[in-house]
Amino acid sequence: MSDTHGLKLLSTLDEDGRLVVELAEETLPAPKGGDVLVRLEAAPINPSDLALLFSAADLQNADYGEGRIVARMPEGARRALAGRVGQPMVIGNEGAGTVIAAGEAPEAQALVGKRVAVIGGGMFAQYRLIGADACMALPAGATAEQGASAFVNPLTALGFVETMKRGGHKAMVHTAAASNLGQMLVRIAQEDGIPLVNIVRNEAQAAILRGLGAEHIVDSSKDDFPPQLQSAIAATGATIAFDAIGGGALISQILHAMEQVVSKDEPYSRYGSNRIKQAYIYGGLDMSPTILTRSFGFAWNIGGWLLFPFLQSTDAETLERLRRRVRDNLTTTFASHYKARISLAEALNRDAVLDYNARRTGEKYLIVPH
Amino acid sequence: MSDTHGLKLLSTLDEDGRLVVELAEETLPAPKGGDVLVRLEAAPINPSDLALLFSAADLQNADYGEGRIVARMPEGARRALAGRVGQPMVIGNEGAGTVIAAGEAPEAQALVGKRVAVIGGGMFAQYRLIGADACMALPAGATAEQGASAFVNPLTALGFVETMKRGGHKAMVHTAAASNLGQMLVRIAQEDGIPLVNIVRNEAQAAILRGLGAEHIVDSSKDDFPPQLQSAIAATGATIAFDAIGGGALISQILHAMEQVVSKDEPYSRYGSNRIKQAYIYGGLDMSPTILTRSFGFAWNIGGWLLFPFLQSTDAETLERLRRRVRDNLTTTFASHYKARISLAEALNRDAVLDYNARRTGEKYLIVPH
Repeated sequence: MSDTHGLKLLSTLDEDGRLVVELAEETLPAPKGGDVLVRLEAAPINPSDLALLFSAADLQNADYGEGRIVARMPEGARRALAGRVGQPMVIGNEGAGTVIAAGEAPEAQALVGKRVAVIGGGMFAQYRLIGADACMALPAGATAEQGASAFVNPLTALGFVETMKRGGHKAMVHTAAASNLGQMLVRIAQEDGIPLVNIVRNEAQAAILRGLGAEHIVDSSKDDFPPQLQSAIAATGATIAFDAIGGGALISQILHAMEQVVSKDEPYSRYGSNRIKQAYIYGGLDMSPTILTRSFGFAWNIGGWLLFPFLQSTDAETLERLRRRVRDNLTTTFASHYKARISLAEALNRDAVLDYNARRTGEKYLIVPH
Repeated sequence: MSDTHGLKLLSTLDEDGRLVVELAEETLPAPKGGDVLVRLEAAPINPSDLALLFSAADLQNADYGEGRIVARMPEGARRALAGRVGQPMVIGNEGAGTVIAAGEAPEAQALVGKRVAVIGGGMFAQYRLIGADACMALPAGATAEQGASAFVNPLTALGFVETMKRGGHKAMVHTAAASNLGQMLVRIAQEDGIPLVNIVRNEAQAAILRGLGAEHIVDSSKDDFPPQLQSAIAATGATIAFDAIGGGALISQILHAMEQVVSKDEPYSRYGSNRIKQAYIYGGLDMSPTILTRSFGFAWNIGGWLLFPFLQSTDAETLERLRRRVRDNLTTTFASHYKARISLAEALNRDAVLDYNARRTGEKYLIVPH
């Protein structure tokens, strides 16, 4: 097989704070060993992709050229990005496509001609050379669009459930709960009988979850949010939360409500209840600081939660069980919805950029690279 | 043996927000079973005691009577204290004294006539009826003053070291590092060869630690604190911090500096380094909210740390090793220093209250109840 030529999206921050996002041509050699060459057919634009693609760049006032955006990175954001200065970054955590060539290893050969979901970065491209172990063969008849989001959201939602169980918790709280991920979590919780408190930020999001039959929905924009939250936590017994927002006092409100519930029938201790209350931050929809009021005793933990460390901490058998569940329920439990389908070139158009970078819940874009 | 009569300190918050701290007489029966009766001779006023004794009460404008203080609890603090309303709270985590009577159990009888350190609450009193397992016999010749702080600070400092090792960390950061606890930690770290970054808040505190031969001392009041902190973290490899302050952005600064150090030689990842950075909050010298900038990737954890849950999570053999180390080094490694010695009645004097409640580093009071 000869070399393959294709386009890919690159994002480069220079030392003057100039961010260049552009389409670049690349030449991919024939795959060797355990590698396969995937012709990419669909890739979702996830919030985690946007953080790498644009970070906090000023996209309102950027220069939008032919296949090229030049934007200013604000001074405040540049220090945290020092590690990427001068390095063209490939973008796109996951996608789906067809394996058009493979190395000689049997696990690679086994995928030739198959439609696969792929994870591993650089999926905002027409082709991707990657290890066969980064691919999951899709069920017969599945479209690339159906398989494009088969990794990040499904395994994150299933990872929350595994993390909850490992920590000895019986019920959980989820924020930004009307997202694609949140909708999956609602369906998983229903299937597995896990009590779930869904925190949303407006009535439209609450309506989405009501439509799915979610039982506990609390709207943080309402005046009576704190008592409603506490009631839902009392009804479910949730002592662990997964938070996509990060900034502000929401995590404190959640932990405070949990503490109120678990300490209710205990004798007073100035250290609070001994029952551990856990919160994980897995996103940053609000980049402002997290405000911890510490009005929830001393038995609490807050940490970052990421998919890849979770996968690394999970045994092979469990992982295969999770992946099989995703594959078997791709168009039901783990279905994703997209607002728009755009080409790689269209992904650099001003209107599209400003729309998909707003990260509004339920308005995800899909890149169709061919 | 007949009943024993003595005084004890009580703190009661009523539902109108009035805090009454007073001396009360009590009658203690003869000990039974595994219990012993301790004539208390010394008890330190630790920050954790003050939180229960006064919490956030307005002590400047309180009414100081004979053996009785009446103070207002600010509205903002009352909600968190709802669980103690109407209940007279005994005060004093630890102390030392002499066992003057014991129940029939051999472990209780073995302590009769011995001077012991005691833990378990209610030590701001003349007598305490308590289980023999809450006592540790002091070495021959040890004074009550030498044994009064044998539990909380020594086991907390040793607990930090154990917690560090359990988490796979090699070096640690400590804040408010010139405290009695901090000074113990400096000596323990020297004895055990553990690299320790000491964060202090002024030059006088730095001088105390220099006098002990501490190697890494960083003053958070200095303009160059961030780079100095990062240098010290780089020099030690610290990836865990124990924080007595709680409020403000100090924990963010520590985690940020750790992240800068551990990610230095890694390829850029927008999620930050995979190396876990851990912070524990074990005190609240600053009761304002903790501000998490989250400028330290996703591999971090912050939690509360308390002595009792640590002890409960520790096997009996380790516990005995820690207690033996304290007993064998009571006047050296684990020596405490006191600014003043006061009676139970003097502990209710306005001048004394305002002085010891200021919780200034290195100005601890000792109650001498007889």
